[in-house]
Formats: sequence, structure tokens, C-alpha cells
Amino acid sequence: MNAATFRKAWGLEAFASACARRRLKRISVWGDQIEQVGVRAAKRLLRDAGLSPFGYNRAGPVLAADPGRRRTLFAAAMNEIDRAAEIGADHVLLFTGGLPEGSKDLNAARRDTVEIFQQLLEHARNAGIALAVEPLHPMLCGDRSCIHTLSHANDICDTLGPGIGIVVDVYHVWWDERIEADIKRAGAANRILGFHVSDWLVPTKHVLTDRGLMGDGIIDLNGIWKQLLAAGYDGPIEVEIFSEHWWAQDPDDVLDLALERCRSLFDGGSGGVAN
Amino acid sequence: MNAATFRKAWGLEAFASACARRRLKRISVWGDQIEQVGVRAAKRLLRDAGLSPFGYNRAGPVLAADPGRRRTLFAAAMNEIDRAAEIGADHVLLFTGGLPEGSKDLNAARRDTVEIFQQLLEHARNAGIALAVEPLHPMLCGDRSCIHTLSHANDICDTLGPGIGIVVDVYHVWWDERIEADIKRAGAANRILGFHVSDWLVPTKHVLTDRGLMGDGIIDLNGIWKQLLAAGYDGPIEVEIFSEHWWAQDPDDVLDLALERCRSLFDGGSGGVAN
Repeated sequence: MNAATFRKAWGLEAFASACARRRLKRISVWGDQIEQVGVRAAKRLLRDAGLSPFGYNRAGPVLAADPGRRRTLFAAAMNEIDRAAEIGADHVLLFTGGLPEGSKDLNAARRDTVEIFQQLLEHARNAGIALAVEPLHPMLCGDRSCIHTLSHANDICDTLGPGIGIVVDVYHVWWDERIEADIKRAGAANRILGFHVSDWLVPTKHVLTDRGLMGDGIIDLNGIWKQLLAAGYDGPIEVEIFSEHWWAQDPDDVLDLALERCRSLFDGGSGGVAN
Repeated sequence: MNAATFRKAWGLEAFASACARRRLKRISVWGDQIEQVGVRAAKRLLRDAGLSPFGYNRAGPVLAADPGRRRTLFAAAMNEIDRAAEIGADHVLLFTGGLPEGSKDLNAARRDTVEIFQQLLEHARNAGIALAVEPLHPMLCGDRSCIHTLSHANDICDTLGPGIGIVVDVYHVWWDERIEADIKRAGAANRILGFHVSDWLVPTKHVLTDRGLMGDGIIDLNGIWKQLLAAGYDGPIEVEIFSEHWWAQDPDDVLDLALERCRSLFDGGSGGVAN
């Protein structure tokens, strides 16, 4: 479970205890929620709940036109990586952010991104934590990211070498005609760090906060899961739903329903299901 | 100019006469507006206005689960191709439509699409008109299309052979890290049939009807135009803006403003600018 699915109802403690009650073993966390309780308290809280932190959200945004602003963002990203390592997360999600203010040059933003990721990667290697590139949906291009395909993410990982991998979020990449080939390629390079699920609703009313619960939309979730398994992925299935609709419901109900959907949709998958 | 930019204010006659007053030479038309006046009257009306029809919208949707429904859609698409040929359009835009009802199988939908396009192409060749594949933005995947990248469109054209080309609509493909390579590839195959412009707004409030006027968003329009020119494209720049905001304005003002933006953004381009 990813904390963002319940972010309007639960802070870290309530989220962790709800997951523990369902005997989940791994959760994905957000830096702002950890900051609210403090890193040491957060570590203790997770340990006491029998939970280990899986994905850590997030390092970034990193793109900016102004050099001073850029340095500030870079320092903040380094801090997030440190905090993720300290808390013992499996990987840190990288977030490029949108085009630098006033720029329309996506190619330049992409070159800058690789350069910045390279520097963050050196830091992350020393800190002993993996970095994760997560392609975001093209409808977020220029506004929130400049990486939109698994193919591009694979290229970036090829360029940067060990210590950086990919998180496959179905919501962002399900439409891509190359998805199977790129999952295979990522699997062959042993770089698939996570698998995020939700669903694509028709109609989609908002580009950020109208994700569907698994099974309510048109993504072939089981088909993509099988591609992950065939590519050697043996990690968990992570539920990450940004949705005004679901945020407004009782979070315990949402959690139970999400687990139920995962069990029915991904049955026969790895032992990691819904953990 | 594409009639859709003014579709809430103007029918074919008002649109054509507004374009003629500005001495435009080519317009893109929609079948429903032609049907309203009848094909013969539409031909006469365009000829009298000194206008030739460029893009014809559209043949499709073509995907359906039910065989009867599929035959009906296919027959309708054939009729649209006939009507486009009769009116003397340069090309007919193909529209796959969303996934067949109840299906989540994008691969199957894509295979079906190529098969159906193949049959439509035989018909279009006989009718003497070109077909155009127009990749739509991935946020329309499964709902309105199953072709989302120029790369995919290039592959389909390679498969189907002569008589089918590509329309590059910046709104749909600007985010793609391969855009320059795919425009080059399409140009080398001499298959770029049209170039549609609008802009990507931040924030984007609706996945269908919140396109921006050129210059109001974050797309590097001039940069993509230069890629088209370098690829040998010598056709017009076509303004196609689906926007509740612009539909609510005075259409004459929108037309003048669109022409002004085209002239300032694409100045130095081919003689076809804004025609």
C-alpha cells in the first residue's frame, strides 16, 4: 500500500497501524508524512507495526531555470535520499518536475535531468539506497515530468549504470504499444524496482486526481502483471490511487476494497501480492 | 483552418465565408457539417469561396465487439471516404475509436485496427483519396483511440503501403521523446499529410476540450515546425483547437487571433503558413 491512497484521512501512524491490522508487511511512504513525526519516531513506529518501508516518495522536483533555485532543489533531493536511506526504504522515487520556468525546451530538460540524476545517483550509491525512475503519463508532460515512457526510463538507466532502476506504474504506461517489450528489457537488466496499480477511468475527469480503483477502469491489469512476472519481477504489488473520490471515502473501507480487488485481479501471482 | 475550431458558432457556409474573407485557400472540414448542406451544395460553396478542402474528418470509429455493429461502422467509414473523395479533399482522417465494449485487450484492438485500415485503404485507393493516421494523445487511449505515437503510426504505414500517411498534431505528440526521429522517418517515407497546431495549457482542465491557442501553452511549436520542414513537409499549418473557452468567444476574433499567432510563431516557414 502507498500512503498517498489515504493521504487525506491518515497520517503515517494511522496508515501504518491500519496496514498492520491487515498483516501487510511493506508500505510505501511519503517524506512529508515522515517529517511530521520525525525520522526516528517514524522508524520505531514502522518497526513496532512489523512494517518495512518499500518505496520512498520522493526526491525532486529537480528542474529549475534559476541556478540558485536549482541548487536549493538539488540539496532538498539529496536530503530526501538521506532520509529514505535512514528509514531503510527499498528505493527512492525520482521526480523531475515540469519544464524550467519560461522554457519550452523538453530536450534540454531531459539532458539536465540525466545530469542531475547522475549526481543524485552518486550520492544514493554512497547512502546505500536505490533510485527509481518512474515514467509519468504524457498528460503530465512539461507540468510535472519530462519522462513518460518505459523506453525512455530504460535508456536513462542504461546511461547511468547500476543503482538506478524503474518503477512501473500501470496508470502512466498502460497505453504504450511498447509496454511489453520495455518491461522485458527492464527485467532483463534486473531493474524493475516496483509495480504500482490503480485503473484508468472512462471518462477521466481530472489529469491528476481521478484514478480508479483496480477493476473499475479499462487497464488490463492482470495482463500487465503477467508481463512483470515473465520479466522476473518478484516484488510486491503497490496500490497508489490519487483520487478525490476515494480520498473522500472511509479509509478502512478503501483499504479493504483495494486488497480484495488485488486478490481477485492478481490471484496466482507471486507471494508478494498486496503486501 | 479546421472547422472544429469554430464548431459551436459556425456551420460550413459561415466558416467558409469567414476564411474566404481572410483570403485563406485551404480549410479542413467535418462530414457532419457537409451532410447538413449536402455534398453538391458543399462543393459549390467551397468553389465559390475559392477554397479547397484539405483534411476531411473523419472515417471511424471502426472498433466494436459486436459483428453487426462492426459492419455498420465499417460501412459508415466507407461512406465517409466516398464523400471525402467526392468533395475533393486531400486526405481523410482515420479514427479508431476506443476499445470494443467490455474489452481491455489493446493488442487485439490494434491488430483489428490494422486489418480494418487495410480494407478501408483498398477502398480509398480506388476512390483516389489518401488516408491519414493521426496518433491521439495517450490520455485518450482506450476511450477514443488505440494509436498514440508517431512511431506506431509509422509502423502501421510501413505495414499497409502506399496511399496511407500521417497527420502530425502537436497537441497529441509533442511530449514524445522520439518525436524528432519519427517526423524524420515519416518525412523520409514521404507520408506527412498534415500538421495540426494548438497548444498544451498548464493546468489542463479537460482531456478533450481544453486545448490552448498557439503561444498560450508550453509546446515548442516553432521547434516542431522546423522538424517538419527539415523532414520535407511543404503543406499547410492547420489550426485545430477543441476548447470550450475559445468556442465561447466571437469566432471572427478567434480566427483573426489564430492567424496572428500563426504568423508570429511560424514566420519564415513555408509559403503554406496559415493557408
